[in-house]
Amino acid sequence: MLTVADLGEHDLLKRLQRYCPANVVGDDGAILATNPHKSLVVTTDVLVDEVHFSDRTTSPYDVGWRATAANLSDLAAMGATPLGITVGLSLPGDRQVDWVEKLYQGMEACLNFHPNYPTPLVGGDICRSQVTTIAITAFGEVSPQRAILRSSASPGDAILVTGFHGLSRAGLELLLNPAQKTKLDSVEIERLITAHQRPIPRLDVLQHLTSIAPEIAIAGMDSSDGLADAIIQICQASKVGAVIYQENLSLYSGLLKLAGAKKAEEWLLYGGEDFELVLCLPLNVALLLVKELEQHAAIIGTITQDKAIQIIETNNLHNRRTLNINKGFQHFKNHK
Amino acid sequence: MLTVADLGEHDLLKRLQRYCPANVVGDDGAILATNPHKSLVVTTDVLVDEVHFSDRTTSPYDVGWRATAANLSDLAAMGATPLGITVGLSLPGDRQVDWVEKLYQGMEACLNFHPNYPTPLVGGDICRSQVTTIAITAFGEVSPQRAILRSSASPGDAILVTGFHGLSRAGLELLLNPAQKTKLDSVEIERLITAHQRPIPRLDVLQHLTSIAPEIAIAGMDSSDGLADAIIQICQASKVGAVIYQENLSLYSGLLKLAGAKKAEEWLLYGGEDFELVLCLPLNVALLLVKELEQHAAIIGTITQDKAIQIIETNNLHNRRTLNINKGFQHFKNHK
Repeated sequence: MLTVADLGEHDLLKRLQRYCPANVVGDDGAILATNPHKSLVVTTDVLVDEVHFSDRTTSPYDVGWRATAANLSDLAAMGATPLGITVGLSLPGDRQVDWVEKLYQGMEACLNFHPNYPTPLVGGDICRSQVTTIAITAFGEVSPQRAILRSSASPGDAILVTGFHGLSRAGLELLLNPAQKTKLDSVEIERLITAHQRPIPRLDVLQHLTSIAPEIAIAGMDSSDGLADAIIQICQASKVGAVIYQENLSLYSGLLKLAGAKKAEEWLLYGGEDFELVLCLPLNVALLLVKELEQHAAIIGTITQDKAIQIIETNNLHNRRTLNINKGFQHFKNHK
Repeated sequence: MLTVADLGEHDLLKRLQRYCPANVVGDDGAILATNPHKSLVVTTDVLVDEVHFSDRTTSPYDVGWRATAANLSDLAAMGATPLGITVGLSLPGDRQVDWVEKLYQGMEACLNFHPNYPTPLVGGDICRSQVTTIAITAFGEVSPQRAILRSSASPGDAILVTGFHGLSRAGLELLLNPAQKTKLDSVEIERLITAHQRPIPRLDVLQHLTSIAPEIAIAGMDSSDGLADAIIQICQASKVGAVIYQENLSLYSGLLKLAGAKKAEEWLLYGGEDFELVLCLPLNVALLLVKELEQHAAIIGTITQDKAIQIIETNNLHNRRTLNINKGFQHFKNHK
């Protein structure tokens, strides 16, 4: 098989330019048209071999998809329409060219997943290194007054969550312990593994938000580091609290079957990498959005003036548990 | 000394956020105001420890400066005003935090070198890796009709080159063989080493271009891979040729003293990393620009319909040498 060393960085870069629109290649930078009166949104991520991915568990196509999805999700979380991404690759000489091509195919597929948000790859750099490293920068644009910020949640806002949570963590479990698959049917297995390998950035939510609430400033972020983390981050940035109703947390049946009630809720809140959106907005708009979104969305609670972040249990409305952030990881504390 | 492992990536990222404007930190992406009716320009570079820099020869401050200068130079080469850069860092756990801080100080100093083009650091990611890797993406904006492209040179255009060439290569020589310093005085030594360690992106040229030629489309690129490479790239992209007058190639006296006539011209043409601009534009505008630029600039030749790229020797106007690109490196071929 052809390696990066066989081909050379220069020829590899030329080969990968097939994944770029012809008009952005060949100058010191790529030129992209933007819309007047919109602001630029920029986000960047670095992924390192054996830290964020591994040949043992992830195909190069999925590495490309996931890396791209994480960046597009950051744009969606800002309310921004994607304009393009750049990719900086560091590769060992013995890395196979086929691996790199599949990586780019995964990126390309994710970039073009949403027919209304096709996103070009507009630049890249490749160099030799001992360790495969993928640095992606994504940029998009948003009307300044429509930017979704963590810091603008207000008491009384409904907390709306798209999709299901915990599925990516459950999919990882199935990949690590395939014997667990016997608990599930084939549709559930497929659903959970796909959630882990090919998460879908929720850019589709943007067009609905624009059509139903063009004048409303919305707070929020994505749930890449977990649903609980997103709620906590928004509350801290907005200097507010939240009440979450346990019964409104959408629990996917396959997750419950795989993990049992206790672990399912833990993965739902803390699993991470589901790349859904957590939005804080007026209740009437939230209700409209739940109706509009073809895929699942739910109102899970309310933003409060009181700064505690509490979960009210389904079977015991007087039992309020407090969500806490504790030195980089989150855990429960029981307040009876 | 405090290491990255001691501090942790999370706390290191927080510490480095001091180098970002406060209003761009804290969301999934940074939001930047742009000007209506301008296009976005994007460029990206990856630098790897022991490939592009080394602790043995380059201070972290200079690594940060050079990496930033290379990216800002790409923007200048496109005629684009910088909007910001993002930095994706991969670091071994035993890398000292002080090294990382100095890297950022070098980046910050270069970003703010031109008082008219202060450029913010607007995003970053840090992760653990065996190999220190720096991925920078720079973005700027340009009026679409004012973008400087490689492909738009026309026969009859004057070829204007800013600054001196070969100085970065000469500076490297002095760093590798300090004994060579005896050939030079202290001002020359300083000049050559600074050219190598702290190259200056020629953003200053943009304001002059705007004031003297607001309506003219200009072709060009930067000379990061060498002056000869830039001329060849422009000619190939524009499907034209060039005649270069050897006597107009500005030879810095210190370079001549250090390297002698033959090697000095080789470094001038092929040394690379001088980050000057090579521009193709109407002669009258070129003459105005030479006058305007406070630092050295010179008209070195003319774009021709004939696709050969020839150097006409000072002492023998009938001796035309052809500049060639040959599989990734360039060399002379003598055509008598």
